[in-house]
Amino acid sequence: MHRVLVLHGPNLNALGTREPEVYGRMTLAEIEHRLGDLAVELGCELECLQSNHEGVLIDALYSARGRAHGVLLNPGGLTHTSVALRDAVAGAGVPVVEVHVSNPHAREPFRHISYLSGAALGVVQGFGPEGYLLALRGLAGHLSRDRRPQA
Amino acid sequence: MHRVLVLHGPNLNALGTREPEVYGRMTLAEIEHRLGDLAVELGCELECLQSNHEGVLIDALYSARGRAHGVLLNPGGLTHTSVALRDAVAGAGVPVVEVHVSNPHAREPFRHISYLSGAALGVVQGFGPEGYLLALRGLAGHLSRDRRPQA
Amino acid sequence: MHRVLVLHGPNLNALGTREPEVYGRMTLAEIEHRLGDLAVELGCELECLQSNHEGVLIDALYSARGRAHGVLLNPGGLTHTSVALRDAVAGAGVPVVEVHVSNPHAREPFRHISYLSGAALGVVQGFGPEGYLLALRGLAGHLSRDRRPQA
Amino acid sequence: MHRVLVLHGPNLNALGTREPEVYGRMTLAEIEHRLGDLAVELGCELECLQSNHEGVLIDALYSARGRAHGVLLNPGGLTHTSVALRDAVAGAGVPVVEVHVSNPHAREPFRHISYLSGAALGVVQGFGPEGYLLALRGLAGHLSRDRRPQA
Amino acid sequence: MHRVLVLHGPNLNALGTREPEVYGRMTLAEIEHRLGDLAVELGCELECLQSNHEGVLIDALYSARGRAHGVLLNPGGLTHTSVALRDAVAGAGVPVVEVHVSNPHAREPFRHISYLSGAALGVVQGFGPEGYLLALRGLAGHLSRDRRPQA
Amino acid sequence: MHRVLVLHGPNLNALGTREPEVYGRMTLAEIEHRLGDLAVELGCELECLQSNHEGVLIDALYSARGRAHGVLLNPGGLTHTSVALRDAVAGAGVPVVEVHVSNPHAREPFRHISYLSGAALGVVQGFGPEGYLLALRGLAGHLSRDRRPQA
Amino acid sequence: MHRVLVLHGPNLNALGTREPEVYGRMTLAEIEHRLGDLAVELGCELECLQSNHEGVLIDALYSARGRAHGVLLNPGGLTHTSVALRDAVAGAGVPVVEVHVSNPHAREPFRHISYLSGAALGVVQGFGPEGYLLALRGLAGHLSRDRRPQA
Amino acid sequence: MHRVLVLHGPNLNALGTREPEVYGRMTLAEIEHRLGDLAVELGCELECLQSNHEGVLIDALYSARGRAHGVLLNPGGLTHTSVALRDAVAGAGVPVVEVHVSNPHAREPFRHISYLSGAALGVVQGFGPEGYLLALRGLAGHLSRDRRPQA
Amino acid sequence: MHRVLVLHGPNLNALGTREPEVYGRMTLAEIEHRLGDLAVELGCELECLQSNHEGVLIDALYSARGRAHGVLLNPGGLTHTSVALRDAVAGAGVPVVEVHVSNPHAREPFRHISYLSGAALGVVQGFGPEGYLLALRGLAGHLSRDRRPQA
Amino acid sequence: MHRVLVLHGPNLNALGTREPEVYGRMTLAEIEHRLGDLAVELGCELECLQSNHEGVLIDALYSARGRAHGVLLNPGGLTHTSVALRDAVAGAGVPVVEVHVSNPHAREPFRHISYLSGAALGVVQGFGPEGYLLALRGLAGHLSRDRRPQA
Amino acid sequence: MHRVLVLHGPNLNALGTREPEVYGRMTLAEIEHRLGDLAVELGCELECLQSNHEGVLIDALYSARGRAHGVLLNPGGLTHTSVALRDAVAGAGVPVVEVHVSNPHAREPFRHISYLSGAALGVVQGFGPEGYLLALRGLAGHLSRDRRPQA
Amino acid sequence: MHRVLVLHGPNLNALGTREPEVYGRMTLAEIEHRLGDLAVELGCELECLQSNHEGVLIDALYSARGRAHGVLLNPGGLTHTSVALRDAVAGAGVPVVEVHVSNPHAREPFRHISYLSGAALGVVQGFGPEGYLLALRGLAGHLSRDRRPQA
Repeated sequence: MHRVLVLHGPNLNALGTREPEVYGRMTLAEIEHRLGDLAVELGCELECLQSNHEGVLIDALYSARGRAHGVLLNPGGLTHTSVALRDAVAGAGVPVVEVHVSNPHAREPFRHISYLSGAALGVVQGFGPEGYLLALRGLAGHLSRDRRPQA
Repeated sequence: MHRVLVLHGPNLNALGTREPEVYGRMTLAEIEHRLGDLAVELGCELECLQSNHEGVLIDALYSARGRAHGVLLNPGGLTHTSVALRDAVAGAGVPVVEVHVSNPHAREPFRHISYLSGAALGVVQGFGPEGYLLALRGLAGHLSRDRRPQA
Repeated sequence: MHRVLVLHGPNLNALGTREPEVYGRMTLAEIEHRLGDLAVELGCELECLQSNHEGVLIDALYSARGRAHGVLLNPGGLTHTSVALRDAVAGAGVPVVEVHVSNPHAREPFRHISYLSGAALGVVQGFGPEGYLLALRGLAGHLSRDRRPQA
Repeated sequence: MHRVLVLHGPNLNALGTREPEVYGRMTLAEIEHRLGDLAVELGCELECLQSNHEGVLIDALYSARGRAHGVLLNPGGLTHTSVALRDAVAGAGVPVVEVHVSNPHAREPFRHISYLSGAALGVVQGFGPEGYLLALRGLAGHLSRDRRPQA
Repeated sequence: MHRVLVLHGPNLNALGTREPEVYGRMTLAEIEHRLGDLAVELGCELECLQSNHEGVLIDALYSARGRAHGVLLNPGGLTHTSVALRDAVAGAGVPVVEVHVSNPHAREPFRHISYLSGAALGVVQGFGPEGYLLALRGLAGHLSRDRRPQA
Repeated sequence: MHRVLVLHGPNLNALGTREPEVYGRMTLAEIEHRLGDLAVELGCELECLQSNHEGVLIDALYSARGRAHGVLLNPGGLTHTSVALRDAVAGAGVPVVEVHVSNPHAREPFRHISYLSGAALGVVQGFGPEGYLLALRGLAGHLSRDRRPQA
Repeated sequence: MHRVLVLHGPNLNALGTREPEVYGRMTLAEIEHRLGDLAVELGCELECLQSNHEGVLIDALYSARGRAHGVLLNPGGLTHTSVALRDAVAGAGVPVVEVHVSNPHAREPFRHISYLSGAALGVVQGFGPEGYLLALRGLAGHLSRDRRPQA
Repeated sequence: MHRVLVLHGPNLNALGTREPEVYGRMTLAEIEHRLGDLAVELGCELECLQSNHEGVLIDALYSARGRAHGVLLNPGGLTHTSVALRDAVAGAGVPVVEVHVSNPHAREPFRHISYLSGAALGVVQGFGPEGYLLALRGLAGHLSRDRRPQA
Repeated sequence: MHRVLVLHGPNLNALGTREPEVYGRMTLAEIEHRLGDLAVELGCELECLQSNHEGVLIDALYSARGRAHGVLLNPGGLTHTSVALRDAVAGAGVPVVEVHVSNPHAREPFRHISYLSGAALGVVQGFGPEGYLLALRGLAGHLSRDRRPQA
Repeated sequence: MHRVLVLHGPNLNALGTREPEVYGRMTLAEIEHRLGDLAVELGCELECLQSNHEGVLIDALYSARGRAHGVLLNPGGLTHTSVALRDAVAGAGVPVVEVHVSNPHAREPFRHISYLSGAALGVVQGFGPEGYLLALRGLAGHLSRDRRPQA
Repeated sequence: MHRVLVLHGPNLNALGTREPEVYGRMTLAEIEHRLGDLAVELGCELECLQSNHEGVLIDALYSARGRAHGVLLNPGGLTHTSVALRDAVAGAGVPVVEVHVSNPHAREPFRHISYLSGAALGVVQGFGPEGYLLALRGLAGHLSRDRRPQA
Repeated sequence: MHRVLVLHGPNLNALGTREPEVYGRMTLAEIEHRLGDLAVELGCELECLQSNHEGVLIDALYSARGRAHGVLLNPGGLTHTSVALRDAVAGAGVPVVEVHVSNPHAREPFRHISYLSGAALGVVQGFGPEGYLLALRGLAGHLSRDRRPQA
């Protein structure tokens, strides 16, 4: 059983109602419901948290040490601006998979730059809400191959 | 009656005492008092919040949905660095007017770059505390012309 | 009584008919009419000039010395390219308020750079034609607080 | 039944033996074997092609029109340098999912820039060979939701 | 009689069906047909080749030496990325006219940069398929004024 | 009958005598004579204007509205520096074809950047004086296909 | 007696266990213990706070006004990205000494840029945990030479 | 006898009263008076012109052909932004000496870039009004060594 | 006996006739003849291939694995633009020496950047055709010191 | 007993009299006197050298090998421009602590870039002459923890 | 009587024989002879020094304090790369006039950047050897107006 | 008999002991010994000089005029920062071959930029100490083909 922390960063509380032509109409609750179903199938246990606060996300990443085997992280706009969050991803000591609902490369130039991705295990972007499911599969597969609990 | 949320970002708690040669000597309380007088004149109802936390500002922008018709936002230094706040301005679904007490273009080069302004309805900068009043007028005028309550 | 020179730069002659999805449908004549009404209210006397010639605008800024108390300037595309106009704003010896009908930060990257703003007293942008009225209020307020006639 | 073209770009012929500390030890044949198994499960039919020639990849993308429903593309180093390949991805008229075995953001700066990603449906990177399986799932899921055969 | 080689680069095979809102609906066959009619009028003999392979285009440019008096080249996306093709244009020893169906300056920033144009005799862009005819006229005019066969 | 305004920007008054190794020895009068002959052939009526003043060129572009069907513009050095002229090209409401006698890409790096081209219908460069004739053909062809008089 | 606020920014909670090859194995508690011993020797009184929240750090800087004579600040990754924190350092009205455990210049390029340092009194970096002691000495020395309590 | 055209660009009309801490208190009339005295000594005949219009300066440069042996040019802010003026300096066919009252390198970064200087014979900057005298000496010396009248 | 693959990239087919003022008048055949003579002296066996196709060069680099002990590569213009070729140099598993006939640093700025050199064993440039001989010596010397056949 | 070489780079000979508003009024002799007192306390033996010659500083760094246990280096303006000095710091084989009297980040942008710091053990800047004492403490502490004499 | 130190930087020893098409054929001895004649006329006393050593130039600048009233400095290639020399110019406490024989803006792009000029009193460039005479006049004029001996 | 000056720049005194994982373990004396042997074979006479002083290297380059036929120069870190040394290479009037022991392109980004190479005859890099021998061969070959003694 893999314990996975699912972290949603700034603005993801508004998923489904905010700029739906970019982000689609599925809400975070619906995504977490679908993630939950897949987690059962993959033998994972999820804990989900959304926050608009960089500090809360960093705190959560450290809280994952010893408690979770991996993290699914949608860093939202912090992807492009936060060295502190990157440092937490590198420092948390558990593998972190980055996921984006939209495809940042098809958007404004400032979204083509990422501080975060270089510290992540892998990145999934552009598949809409489906990306969360792919990311969970990717993380679970990684954990199954390398399953030492993180201390 | 327009309900307007007034958001003051990082460091504005210190207005009036911090670097007065740049920001003047009027405090936030005095500005809000003057804004209140103008709000009455313009038929607006104000709710004011200052925070040094990016996350609190983002939360507040989403809280404005369905509760406020517009937002007056002084993003302080986050103007130049926060994609997350920009995304909240774009995603909040209410018009946001950006205001700066000083004129960022007359200061350091890193203040000449703005992530935020592209998502705002309009920008007022350089008029000192007076800028808040102009910004409220600009917002109220916009709301009067386009007065559907925001959902 | 404040004497205010209103300067419209290149392409503003076509306001109302040129790219109306960007600049709206109000003409310069209509804006000046509305400005005139507000000027009466604020105790200002306006003199208006539109020119597509950078040199005419510079000449006009110097002509303002000793004749006007302040200037309202929409520099149009010269905002992003003219050091000479910036120098005239700095050299004219009267406070200059910059106004833009559109929000340059929501447009092409070359409109995110401003040579001019650093020399202006304040900037108002993105409010459509309404911005002229806000700018006049901002200028008049400044002049009332600091009303020495400019020599 | 979705017909999917799997395209491997330059240097992927050497997967498994080339720089294994970066790309791992699984060969392309092994990856295609695993992809084949998953394809059966997902109801997809695969056609695989590796080429070190940009032109062959572009030709193949156009050959997919009317013959395949989607493309899985690992563009290798062309990701960072080829506008021609991007144009083919945009022009092929079938959804293209981009996959990378390594995480380009954790490598040299010239791998942080992508011409291609902005034209792709989605991107999966950093999961090693497993990424191909995630990408196929992502593509198949997309095709199932939007299953008009591409003309 | 001027012998002219007409070279179409990557993605031009799909002209007429690919992104028609950018490139129009005329196919390469139709363009070549119209070019053929104009060639007769101008006393030119055409040889046409389309390839998605940079190497084939370079080979063709060298094959033109001693066999053709000039080249009409639509380099497609290679315009912005290929020093090798530029070197072939410079080295081929026959005048090369560059043509683009769309106007690259009205598109993404990476299309505003050209390695190729500095080595071309002249450039025609933005006129749609008509641009090929203008380019042929430009080349033919040049050859008539300077008609030494190229060795 | 298409009415076409031919605008020559800064320094073109000196064509034929200024830096002839770059610009050739044909004068503007000779070019306009040859343009006139072609105009008769193409059923166009020309009006020609040369000015070293950006403002005069902008004024002329607006004067074309309702009076001319298209504009031939050689913006000279303003190509690389004038947002105001670009805005006039975009705002004039008639198609504008840009022409350059020399090939800017074969010259100094500051000539490789263009503010203007993105707003033009098409560009012809590098053919020497002949470029004007090609540009007129390109414009006339465009007008014949899309001949609504511009208001 | 100098009252000194010691502020540790994002990720410093994990000091000693996070990436020990970069940051060493001494924990924050151990550092604060050693700082406490030195404080006694230097006649300082310490108050320590670690937070992963930019806003908490800004709040704390303002809380120092009138309560502390100086601040020791390890801004972590915010060094490179936060104008808001810089503004608080400038606005707090007490001297701030910046300290880094690692040497940012020996790491990734994005750590070579600092928004914060320009507003600090001084910077100590690269000495590992020892740097805190040097920074406290530097601050205490400064306060002894210039000992007006900060208002 | 050398005929020398003295051209003063934008904002120099205000010399002596505009930003005197930068440009000093000597007016253009006083400078021209002193230049006149030196001209007599050097056997030069001066013709002076100030304009805030780029176009007027370009016109004047061409008017110098055949009428003047050299030009003294203070391009003001156009130094940093005008390719058109540079082209006129290169095209005028008479040697042009550039002079600046202030030292642009001791001011804002945008004044460290010069389009114009590369086309000038020589540059004198930073000597205040005295610079005009040095520049005239430099020009007269050049003309004496190379005195063919310019055609 | 060292087996050495000699690869000539794009445009080198034209050596001796193309831009001889840059590249000299010696043809590739003559260079290969001289290389052959030196190979005998150094105990090397050569296999030579020229191609204008990036893909052919990449294929050839992989074909060298297990068959050749080293590669001499003149990448031509691909030096400055091809990450794919760099990856093949890194991935081929045999030492690659890069050679240039001209000195790229004495030419256009875009030739001062190299993607390829960082993956090569060594670089020889600027010696004209002689550079091939130096490069072969350098490679042979390296192989003699480290002579395990490459697998 | 630690032997420490104290190296003062260009312009430090003038400390105390040169730009005292930036560098203070303490001379190098006074600093070295205070350093000497601290050295006794810390059990260090100092050797001091000031030079305006980069080469003398590099020579001195190598002379430190085997003779000194550490180096205190104020590189002055060479910090921002000298790769050669950086290489000597890296190559000297003894730990080097960098010290600056002023805070380079509070000065011109070209002082925000450092070639040198990445090769130093640690950096102390902004504390005025006091910084030398902190730097010596930092170096002595490092040597005490890791006291093998350098060979 | 003004005492003036004339400093010639790197490579000026070779003036007259080195790249005469750029620097002319007059030697340093001839220039100093002509400077000497002018010095007599202007009431100056010269001391001349050429060195290829940055450190010697910096030493000389400090030696000028109290001994010379001004410095004439041709910094050669150090202009574009030396912050240390700039600091000496700023720190020497005597006015320094910068002179260049050639016009750096008409040469390679790396000569368009100057670290030094911002600290100089004035700059004279492009007049060939004559520039030294103009620079001496400029310096002497400055000293006559502001003749306090430098301490 | 060719007289060749061998110049080793900064830090090369430490070759063999400094960072041997980058530069190897062969000392300069050993390299010069091997160079000496090859010189005999090639009919060259060597004179060797190492200096950490840029000025000494420049002096030596000029001393080569009339005394040496060519120069072998390892500029070390000055490669990337010294315009003065580049000017000496260009001005010395003898062919200069640049050699590097390591491959700068495989190291930090600031080593990918070269001021010097554009003025050298040729460059050899990445072959370790062997590179000196290749460079001498390259220089000797050049001198044999073009053997006029340098004046």
